[in-house]
Amino acid sequence: MNDSFYMKLALDLARGTQGQTAPNPVVGAVLVKDGQIIGMGAHLRAGEPHAEVHAIQMAGDQAKDATLYVTLEPCSHYGKTPPCSDLVIKTGIKKVVVAATDPNPQVAGTGIERMKKAGIEVVVSLLQEEARELNKIFFYNIQTGLPYVTLKSATSLDGKTATVTGESKWITGEESRADVHHFRHQHDGILVGVNTVLKDNPSLTTRLANGGKNPIRIILDTHLRTPLDATVVIDKEAPTWVVAGADVDEAHVKEFSERGVDVIKLESQKISIREVLTVLGKRGITSLFVEGGAEVHGSFLKESAFQQIITYIAPKLIGGKNAHVSFGGQGIEHISEAVSLKIIQVDQIGSDIRIIAEPM
Amino acid sequence: MNDSFYMKLALDLARGTQGQTAPNPVVGAVLVKDGQIIGMGAHLRAGEPHAEVHAIQMAGDQAKDATLYVTLEPCSHYGKTPPCSDLVIKTGIKKVVVAATDPNPQVAGTGIERMKKAGIEVVVSLLQEEARELNKIFFYNIQTGLPYVTLKSATSLDGKTATVTGESKWITGEESRADVHHFRHQHDGILVGVNTVLKDNPSLTTRLANGGKNPIRIILDTHLRTPLDATVVIDKEAPTWVVAGADVDEAHVKEFSERGVDVIKLESQKISIREVLTVLGKRGITSLFVEGGAEVHGSFLKESAFQQIITYIAPKLIGGKNAHVSFGGQGIEHISEAVSLKIIQVDQIGSDIRIIAEPM
Repeated sequence: MNDSFYMKLALDLARGTQGQTAPNPVVGAVLVKDGQIIGMGAHLRAGEPHAEVHAIQMAGDQAKDATLYVTLEPCSHYGKTPPCSDLVIKTGIKKVVVAATDPNPQVAGTGIERMKKAGIEVVVSLLQEEARELNKIFFYNIQTGLPYVTLKSATSLDGKTATVTGESKWITGEESRADVHHFRHQHDGILVGVNTVLKDNPSLTTRLANGGKNPIRIILDTHLRTPLDATVVIDKEAPTWVVAGADVDEAHVKEFSERGVDVIKLESQKISIREVLTVLGKRGITSLFVEGGAEVHGSFLKESAFQQIITYIAPKLIGGKNAHVSFGGQGIEHISEAVSLKIIQVDQIGSDIRIIAEPM
Repeated sequence: MNDSFYMKLALDLARGTQGQTAPNPVVGAVLVKDGQIIGMGAHLRAGEPHAEVHAIQMAGDQAKDATLYVTLEPCSHYGKTPPCSDLVIKTGIKKVVVAATDPNPQVAGTGIERMKKAGIEVVVSLLQEEARELNKIFFYNIQTGLPYVTLKSATSLDGKTATVTGESKWITGEESRADVHHFRHQHDGILVGVNTVLKDNPSLTTRLANGGKNPIRIILDTHLRTPLDATVVIDKEAPTWVVAGADVDEAHVKEFSERGVDVIKLESQKISIREVLTVLGKRGITSLFVEGGAEVHGSFLKESAFQQIITYIAPKLIGGKNAHVSFGGQGIEHISEAVSLKIIQVDQIGSDIRIIAEPM
C-alpha cells in the first residue's frame, strides 16, 4: 500500500459525511503504523471531535510513531475543540500527510508549521484536487462569506420544463427526483421563487429512504404573496424564511412571524440576488440549492451568482414555442456574453442524464 | 479466434462504407479457412459487386470449403448483379454465418434456403442486433418506402438555440460542428425550412477534411420564398429541391427550374410532413437529415415523423424567456403526450455533449 491508497481511504471517510458537517468541512483521517491501519476517523458534526481525534483515539497507545493521513490541514486554533496540530504533536505522530491546506488564507499553513517545528515530517498536497472538490462548498464559503450556490434544473431533451399549459409533472423519472433529495440534504438552504410556491405548493423537504437533513426553506417574495396556508408556512418540518422587498407591510410581516416564519426585509424595494446572498451568508447559510423557477434561475444567471449547475435531462420531447424553459428573464443578446461552463460529470440516472457543470 | 471475432471484423468492414452505399445497405464479408482469413470484402457503392463477391475474389482458388461470415443474408435475386447465394454455392463454400436476415419480408430467408438446399451449413443471427443497427436506415427504408429521418439540434445547457436577438453563431464548439458533417455525409438528403435559408443563407454541403458526399438539399417552402440568389440555388454544389404548396405560381416555379432547382409542388396548399416524406421516398431519398429550424422540428415532432434525434449540448447558459428553442410549434399540452425516447449513446464531442436517441 502506498500513500495514495491511505489518502483515498481518508477521502472516502470524509465523503461519507457530506451534508452533515456544515458549517465545518468534511474531513477524514487514517493512521498507519508498520503497514497496518491502526486508526480511522471522520468529522461527523459541527461541535464534535475532528477526524484526527477520532483516529488517534481508535489507535490508543499505538498512535506513537504512526503516520497520519488527513484530507485537510490539522487546525491550529481553539474553536469548539482544542487545536488538532497540538494533539498530533502530543501523541508523538512521526509523519503527517495532508491533502489540502486550510482554505482560510489567515490560518493556511500555520497548523503545518507548528507540526514541522515539533520535528514531525509533513508532506502536503497529496490528492489535493480531490480533497478540495470534496469541500468545495466549505472552501468557497470560508473565502467569500457567501453561500455556495447550486442551480438545479430538469428539462426534456428539447430544454422544456413544462408544457405550454404549464404541466410539469413529471418530466424526469423517479430516480432523478430521488437524486435531487441527496442534494437537498447536502445544502444548508433551498431557495425558490414565490411563483413556485403559488403554483406547486411544495414542501421543499428532504425525502430520502433513510431520512436526511431538511434545508432551511427560503422563498424569494418581493411583495409577500406567499399564502399563509402554504405548506412551507404551516408544516413546521423545517425553518422557512421569506425574503421580501423593503416596502412590505409590517402587519403582514407579523402574520408570518406569528406562524414561526421569518420574513427578511431587504434594504431595497426589489430583490437583488447579491443582497440576498450577503444576507444569507451572514445568517450562516453556507450552501444554497436553487430549484427555480425560470425567473429565479434567470436572475442568478444574470448576476453570475452560482458555483454549480445540476441539470437533469429526460429522454422526452415536448415542443412548443411557448412551452416553459429552465432559464427565463431577459437573457443575453450575444453568444459571446453566454456564461461558459466546464462539465464536471455526466451520469445516467434511471433513464435520464444528469450533467453537473461549473462556471469556467 | 471464434465466430464472433470474424463477424465483428465483417461488421467493421461494413461500418467503413456507411454513407456511400445508398440505396443499398452496408455489408461486410470475411472468408476463413483453416483458421486463416483468406478473403475480405465490403459493398462499396450501389451497382458495384456485393461484399461476398469481393471476398471470394480475394480468396481465389482457396475459397472452396471455406467459411463465409457475412453481415447480411446473401441475396437470392437478380438486381444489378447476379444473386450472391448462387455464387456462394458455385464456389463450394462449406459454411455460411449470417448476422441479419434480409429486411425485405418478401425475400427474407430465401437466400438462406437456397444455400441450405445446396448442402451448405448456415448459421443465422450472430451479432444480429449490431448488424441491424448498422443498417437501420436501410432496414427502415426498405420496410416503409419512406426516408429514415434524423432530427439534429444544437443547444446551450439551458436548451436555447439562439439568444433573444436571434444570434446563434456559435453555441456549440468546432468539434461538434465538424461532427455534424459526418451525418450530412451519411444521409441522402438534408432538409431545412425556408426561414433558415432566409436567415442564414447556408450552403448545406458536407465539409469534411477528406471530402465527403453532399446530400440533396431540400427546402420546405410553402409560398416559394427562397431567394433566387440563395447559395443553395446558385452554387451548383449539390442538387436542390424546393418543396412548395399547391398554390405557387408556375412562372415563379419556372424561374427555379431555369436555374436547375427542382420545385416539388405538393397536392395540398399547406405542407404536410407525411406527404413530404412520401414524395421524397418515391424520389429515392432513403435518409433525411433535418437541421431545423424550430418550426420544422416542431412539425416533425407533431407528426412523430422521425427515427432518430441527435442533440449537441454546449456547456453554456444563455437564458431569456424569449430566446430561441430547438423545437417550436404549438407543442403538447400534457406531459403524458410527450414523445418518449430511448437514449442510444452519450458522447463528449470537444467540450460539448452529444446525445443520440430514438423514439421508444
